[in-house]
This record gives sequence, structure tokens and C-alpha cells, in this order.
Amino acid sequence: MIRFDTPGDVVAALADLPAPDARAIAAAQDRQAQLTKPAGSLGRLEEVALFLAGWQGRDRPRLDRGRVAIFAGNHGIAARGVSAFPPAVTAQMVANFEAGGAAINALARAAGLELRIVAIDLDRPTGDIAEAPAMSEAECLDALNLGAASVEAGLDLILPGEMGIGNSTPAAALCAASFGGDASDWAGPGTGVAGAALAAKRVLIDRALDQHGGDCVSAFETLRRLGGREIAAMAGAMLAARHARVPVLLDGFIACSALAPLARWQPRIVDHCLAGHVSAEPGHQRLLRHLGLAPLLALGLRLGEGSGAAVAAGIVRAALAAHDGMATFAEAGVSGA
Amino acid sequence: MIRFDTPGDVVAALADLPAPDARAIAAAQDRQAQLTKPAGSLGRLEEVALFLAGWQGRDRPRLDRGRVAIFAGNHGIAARGVSAFPPAVTAQMVANFEAGGAAINALARAAGLELRIVAIDLDRPTGDIAEAPAMSEAECLDALNLGAASVEAGLDLILPGEMGIGNSTPAAALCAASFGGDASDWAGPGTGVAGAALAAKRVLIDRALDQHGGDCVSAFETLRRLGGREIAAMAGAMLAARHARVPVLLDGFIACSALAPLARWQPRIVDHCLAGHVSAEPGHQRLLRHLGLAPLLALGLRLGEGSGAAVAAGIVRAALAAHDGMATFAEAGVSGA
Repeated sequence: MIRFDTPGDVVAALADLPAPDARAIAAAQDRQAQLTKPAGSLGRLEEVALFLAGWQGRDRPRLDRGRVAIFAGNHGIAARGVSAFPPAVTAQMVANFEAGGAAINALARAAGLELRIVAIDLDRPTGDIAEAPAMSEAECLDALNLGAASVEAGLDLILPGEMGIGNSTPAAALCAASFGGDASDWAGPGTGVAGAALAAKRVLIDRALDQHGGDCVSAFETLRRLGGREIAAMAGAMLAARHARVPVLLDGFIACSALAPLARWQPRIVDHCLAGHVSAEPGHQRLLRHLGLAPLLALGLRLGEGSGAAVAAGIVRAALAAHDGMATFAEAGVSGA
Repeated sequence: MIRFDTPGDVVAALADLPAPDARAIAAAQDRQAQLTKPAGSLGRLEEVALFLAGWQGRDRPRLDRGRVAIFAGNHGIAARGVSAFPPAVTAQMVANFEAGGAAINALARAAGLELRIVAIDLDRPTGDIAEAPAMSEAECLDALNLGAASVEAGLDLILPGEMGIGNSTPAAALCAASFGGDASDWAGPGTGVAGAALAAKRVLIDRALDQHGGDCVSAFETLRRLGGREIAAMAGAMLAARHARVPVLLDGFIACSALAPLARWQPRIVDHCLAGHVSAEPGHQRLLRHLGLAPLLALGLRLGEGSGAAVAAGIVRAALAAHDGMATFAEAGVSGA
């Protein structure tokens, strides 16, 4: 399993990315062409089946072991009221996840996915990014490793999710530092801030960008300075997944913001990632465009927790069911076009 | 159960439509407001839960008994080569449905839906709509009744689907007769015709509209003259579902074309219908706009068989899982906004 002992290990992991299994993709493509349907008539379901085939290295990919890994962290900047909810809600929601009462519990059950919850130092919020780096090097490496530890070879799909009151603020900062623009381009209502509170959130994000922009010289430094523990953990999970050839199903704005600095320094990192949905948070659509990813769903979700990815797992399941379960023209005795 | 003994029974069924259960909707709304998430953060999943609550008359709607009902019919106009596939494929695909090898078999299994297959007089294609009515009054009433018989009170959801080589041609004609425009507005590639074949298909549709347009004086006459047996059966199923208060999850262009003449004479018929997806067939987007329905999915499907609706059933299942399975703020001890 991949480990990050130094910031250089992140550079190395990004430099040497495995490619999908071309043989499995070709075999899956050949099978699709023989199934009893007009060619291409299952649209993106066919594309999803080929994507999974390539990363799982199987002609008939499966979703027996899909895992939602929710990472939780607290943010120094949340004390400034950037969220509609108080910071104590992060730990309360972790308890809710553990008791089985949150949206992601219901959605993961419905989609037949495992759920793993990793709360990271909730009693130690990150530094306030408007003034200081979010994390020390050691803290950021710890978070990356916690994320990496949530993925092992043999998983069929990983869905990184998050909980962290205030975290649409570091997410917007990560996007701006990675792809340009300022707070007005990337910051939206999050859980529901508007008016003066949203304006204040944007001022803080621009201050964080002024403070750290010049020092964001690598994916690691960007994550460390502007991110958060749960965001760095998702980045670690995504990197580890690539090296374990486990495909990633992406959730919303915060989850995708973990990918932003990685993609800024290595655009091919998105190749094993499927965008589960586009959320109601305005920055998410912009971010997906920068990542070059087309979402499977657009249902106006804006919850996080991996919830949108878990809903999209139902689409993946449908894609694999059709790919695996259908008869060929020859098997069914159906005439071709 | 509703029956159509005369064309006047269709008029009567459209005139007296039941409304959803306002009490169940209000109770479901009240529950949504207490669940552990920011208000509205589950987007369209919340809307789907309320829709099902209203039509099922349950505060906590369920999807224990969802049924895909596929109707199959053959079309006189298919002999003119309007499809990329020969007419014999309709019966071959019905055999494939019965053997369990089609896309809808795999997708219905994956979504936990029953599958019922109703092949209607496959050895007797409809009249060629470019020259004659598709069906006699008795034939059209028979098809409507076969559709109605596929729905009973107590079903949680009905997904009408279809198989009928050539049926995107009558579907386009039904749309034009119901909502205006001509073949160039409504006719697309279907299973894959292009170039001269598509141009010829459009000429035939415009000829059918010239032939019958002035006689399309009711929903019944429109269905009878320009439709097909499987299309009339879907219309019968949708009408019967309304009277049994069973919500409908709509499939693609052909399935929605069954609704077009009903909606032309009674716009409120769409109220118990949820658009499962928008297909790759260009007329479908236009049709959904005329029906005032926003699709849950846009995955580029163009297969029919109820396949897109079956994929969308996974979204319905997710919506109900969250609505039913989540804890309230009070139950979980989570602070509100």
C-alpha cells in the first residue's frame, strides 16, 4: 500500500500513474457490440461499464465491494461563521454516521455499499487559512496516509466523502489556487449562507489566497496550506486508489476540490475518476469543467458525506448489470441491424 | 379496475382525474424538514419522496412492488424500412424478454422491479399510418384495456415500456398531432436510421399527418389513427394508474408519446408521472418540455423497453431510502442551522 512519508512521496506518486487495462477495455467493448440492443443505445451506461472494466482489469467488471469512506475534520476558519451550522455539528454528524441515521447511511445501504467513517482530530481544528497554513507538514502527511489506508487492492469502487463544518471555504480556496480565479468564481452558499455572510466568506477566501498563493508551489503545499484534514485524506484516498487500480466515484464540490491540486500538477490523475454528480454548489460545475469530467447525475444535491456518489453508484450498478446480464444476438437468436 | 368499452370511456377517464393526497404530502414535507441535513440539500430526491407520498397516500412511501410492463406491437409502416432493424425483431426481442436476456431484464433485476411482458397481436401489424388508421376502434380499445389490466391498486410504481420495430415513426406522428410541428420537429434516428432513410421516414410521417390530422379530434382518435397497439396499451396503463393512484415512472420518447394525446386533451394527466430520463432521441427533450416534465436522468439512452425508467427507479429507491431511513435532528442530537 502506498505511504506518504515526505512531501516528495506525493510528487513521486503523481509522476508514476498506472494506466487502465487496455485488454479488458477491448474485451468489454467487443462484448457490448454483441449484446441484444442497437449499438450505443445504452449511452453512458456503456461508457461506465468500459471504465470499470479498464480499472478493475476485468472483461465483466463487478460491484461486490464498493466502499464509501467518509473523512471528517474541523476547520479553524469555521469559528468565523462561514457556515450556517456551528462547528460542533461535525462531531455530532460523525456520531450520527456511527449510529446509522445520516443520509449516507440510508443511501449506502440502498446502493449496497460498505461505509467506513474516519474522524480526524476533531478536537484540533486546522489553522485559520485566512492567516496561517491549515496544517503542518506532518499533519498533512498523516491525513494523506489516513486516506490512503482506506483503500486496498481488490475493492471494486471507492467513494470518498466528507464532513467538516465550514469546508466549502477551503474547497473554494483550493480550486482558485489550482485553476485560477478568485472567491467570487468559486465560493457559493455551501450549506446555506447568503447575503452578508456569503460576502464575508468570500473576503476570507480572497485573504487566504493572498496569504498563501505564492507558496502553493506543489499539490502537497496547496493541500497543506489551504485544505483541511478530511480534504487531504480524500486526496490520499484518490492517489492510493489509482496505484491500487481501484476506480473512484466522485461526490460533490468538497470531494472534487481534493482532486483539484492533484490535477493542477498531474492532469492524468482524473483518469480513474468518474464524476458521480454535479451539485447545486455553483463552483462544482466549474470545477468539473476544469477537471474535464462529465457528471452522471444532476439532481441538485448539496449535502456532501459521499451522498451524491452513493446515489450515482446505482447508475454504476445498472451499467454493470446490463453489461454482465444481457444475452448476445447469437445467444438470443435476434437479428442484427 | 378501469375499462374502456367505448371511446367515450377515455373522455370520461380523462375528465375525472384524482388528485394526490395532500395530507400525506404535508406529512412527508414535515418529516423532510426534520431530517439530519441542511434543508433542501437532497435536491430532487426530496421532491421524488413527496411525489411518491402524494400518489401512494403514505407519509413514508415505499418501493416494494414496482412493475415494468413492456408492451410489444408491430407496425404496418415498418414494412417501408423506417427502422434499422427488420420487423421480425419485435417477436425475437419478446422471446429475449421471456428468456431473461434483454437489457430490461438485467436492469429490472438490478432495480428490484417485477417484469411483465404483453405481446399484442404481433402477427397482425397495424395499418400503415401513411395511408390508413393504425387500428380500428375495437383494436384500439383492446390495446387500451390490455394496458389498463397491467396496473392494479397497491402497486407502488408502474413503469410502462415498449418494443415495436418502427415505432419511433408513429411516436413522432402522435407528438406532432398533439403539440404541433411536423416530422422535422419530431422524427429522429430511432434505433439508428440516418441520411436518405431518415429523410424517407420524415416524408412518411408528414404524409400520415396530412392523412389523419383533421380527424385527430380526441385523444382516442389520435391514438387510434397514428399510434400502435403497444403505444395505446401504455396510454391505457397510464390512465388506469392514475385512477388506481399508482405513480408512473416514464421511459423514453415512445413511452412518452403515449402520454402526448392524453396531455393534449387533459394537461393534468401528467401529474402522477415522473420523467425517468431524457433519451438521445431529439424529439424526447421537446416532448418533455411540452409535457412540463423535468427528467431525472440524461444518460444518452435510446433503447426503449422501459430501460431508462428502470435505471431511474434506482434514483427513486435512493430518495425513499433517505426519506424513510434518516434520523431527525432530535433523534440524532444534532444542532440545527
